[in-house]
Amino acid sequence: MENPLTPEVLADPVALTRALVDIESVSLNEKAIADCVEQVLRGLPHLITHRHGNTVMARTDLGRDQRVVLAGHLDTVPLNNNFPSTLRGDLMYGCGTSDMKSGVAYALHLAVTLPQPRYDVTYLFYEAEEIESKYNGLFLVSEAHPEWLAADFAVLLEPTYGLVEAGCQGTMRAVVATTGVRAHSARSWHGVNAIHGAGEVLRRLQAYEARRVTLDGCEYREGMNAVRIHGGVAGNVIPDRCEIEVNYRFAPDRTPAEAEAHLREVFAGFDLAVTDVAAGAAPGLDAAPAKEFLAA
Amino acid sequence: MENPLTPEVLADPVALTRALVDIESVSLNEKAIADCVEQVLRGLPHLITHRHGNTVMARTDLGRDQRVVLAGHLDTVPLNNNFPSTLRGDLMYGCGTSDMKSGVAYALHLAVTLPQPRYDVTYLFYEAEEIESKYNGLFLVSEAHPEWLAADFAVLLEPTYGLVEAGCQGTMRAVVATTGVRAHSARSWHGVNAIHGAGEVLRRLQAYEARRVTLDGCEYREGMNAVRIHGGVAGNVIPDRCEIEVNYRFAPDRTPAEAEAHLREVFAGFDLAVTDVAAGAAPGLDAAPAKEFLAA
Repeated sequence: MENPLTPEVLADPVALTRALVDIESVSLNEKAIADCVEQVLRGLPHLITHRHGNTVMARTDLGRDQRVVLAGHLDTVPLNNNFPSTLRGDLMYGCGTSDMKSGVAYALHLAVTLPQPRYDVTYLFYEAEEIESKYNGLFLVSEAHPEWLAADFAVLLEPTYGLVEAGCQGTMRAVVATTGVRAHSARSWHGVNAIHGAGEVLRRLQAYEARRVTLDGCEYREGMNAVRIHGGVAGNVIPDRCEIEVNYRFAPDRTPAEAEAHLREVFAGFDLAVTDVAAGAAPGLDAAPAKEFLAA
Repeated sequence: MENPLTPEVLADPVALTRALVDIESVSLNEKAIADCVEQVLRGLPHLITHRHGNTVMARTDLGRDQRVVLAGHLDTVPLNNNFPSTLRGDLMYGCGTSDMKSGVAYALHLAVTLPQPRYDVTYLFYEAEEIESKYNGLFLVSEAHPEWLAADFAVLLEPTYGLVEAGCQGTMRAVVATTGVRAHSARSWHGVNAIHGAGEVLRRLQAYEARRVTLDGCEYREGMNAVRIHGGVAGNVIPDRCEIEVNYRFAPDRTPAEAEAHLREVFAGFDLAVTDVAAGAAPGLDAAPAKEFLAA
């Protein structure tokens, strides 16, 4: 494939956003877009460029006192009749236009056009943000090359309608299961219905009052939600198992262990298995580049 | 295929059961077994034999005062590592051994060995009992050839551990749906969780006290159960739809319309769509052959 990220496109963040959108990169299929981005970055003499899987890292090494990370994920959620991109008037539509190829485009535009930034800059274009954390490029880099992440301040260019959202909530997924006894539905009194038993799990979720906490001047609103439910064997069988997948978003003052303990407290009496977790991140707004960024 | 239902096999109900089990006939795949059964019946000069789809009907026409139907379905539920059959000691294992090829074997054995029954007899070997009622051979025959079903008494040879179960409950399936508003689970307060909303549906099911009613001396226990539940979009999305499939088994003193009205009353305030229904059947124990059958 010829690289669509030509010098002309790289000079124009809007054209660059569209070109990035038009390289299909649903999670776990980021090779093509990572190849294009890597090729661009390796051509820039002011950057040192490395790759890990489908994550590309490029950094300046100008000896500045402080270092800033600009990061964006290359992957998108699954396509939904929105590929390639289209224009309607001034607006661009397409898979990943907002989340987050526009952010990736800005970082890549700066990487190309800003050879002498005021702080040293590390650019990170990473894979698999939209799926389970074990695939996440930032997680994989943190294991394999933690030094790539060293910085005084980091900006993740996720879409926020222009607001600064400091820090990051943690996320945990767990499966809460209810069990019963199978029976023919014509003799339902011989069985125990696991789906009916799930009613209490949903009642607790509906009654749950999510905590709000203010850290470093930023309010975090937690959330606990059923994101999937599944149960049933056949149209004439009393089901013996029902699973509710719960997603808990927790403020960064809780560790993953504390988050799990809280989940287990909420669902006391039920089987619960944690299936996915990513820790939160404190806002860190006291760093000099952060203060300057907020003042701007 | 050579017909495994040889005269020797037909003379022995146990061998016949096993031979029938070993002709795979999961619902909608009854052609092979219906072919074998039809071939046997057409070879008997004391029977008049017809076929409709994969349902085979054979009857005596001896001019008796009363007529009895013996009926059994040819299909089974899906295989589950239980095909072909196996023996362990005295016991036969295999898909459909109990429900209901043993019953089919007895009816077929009688059809072959009883040329002069006391009442005229109609044998019905029918397709697709284990799935939605629109495929059911008895239903299809009732539409196309209702005269095949005319009788004073009918015995369906379903497994009941030797008990007589008179009449038949009706069955209705309906999908109760809850709706909400999608949002990212990190901003759950922007959405409305349809799975949480399903909690109230499950609460009503759990609190439901099923009616018991005595008809013609027989007690019918109704039942209302969730048999399937499904909801969710992705691990990080507040779901906007959850569907609960409910199976209502209703005593034969309710019509399907009354059963539906009752379902709608139980789930007042929720979207409900009936997806499947089969009416009940009154016991009819006052017919002479019925009295004799019960006395035996």
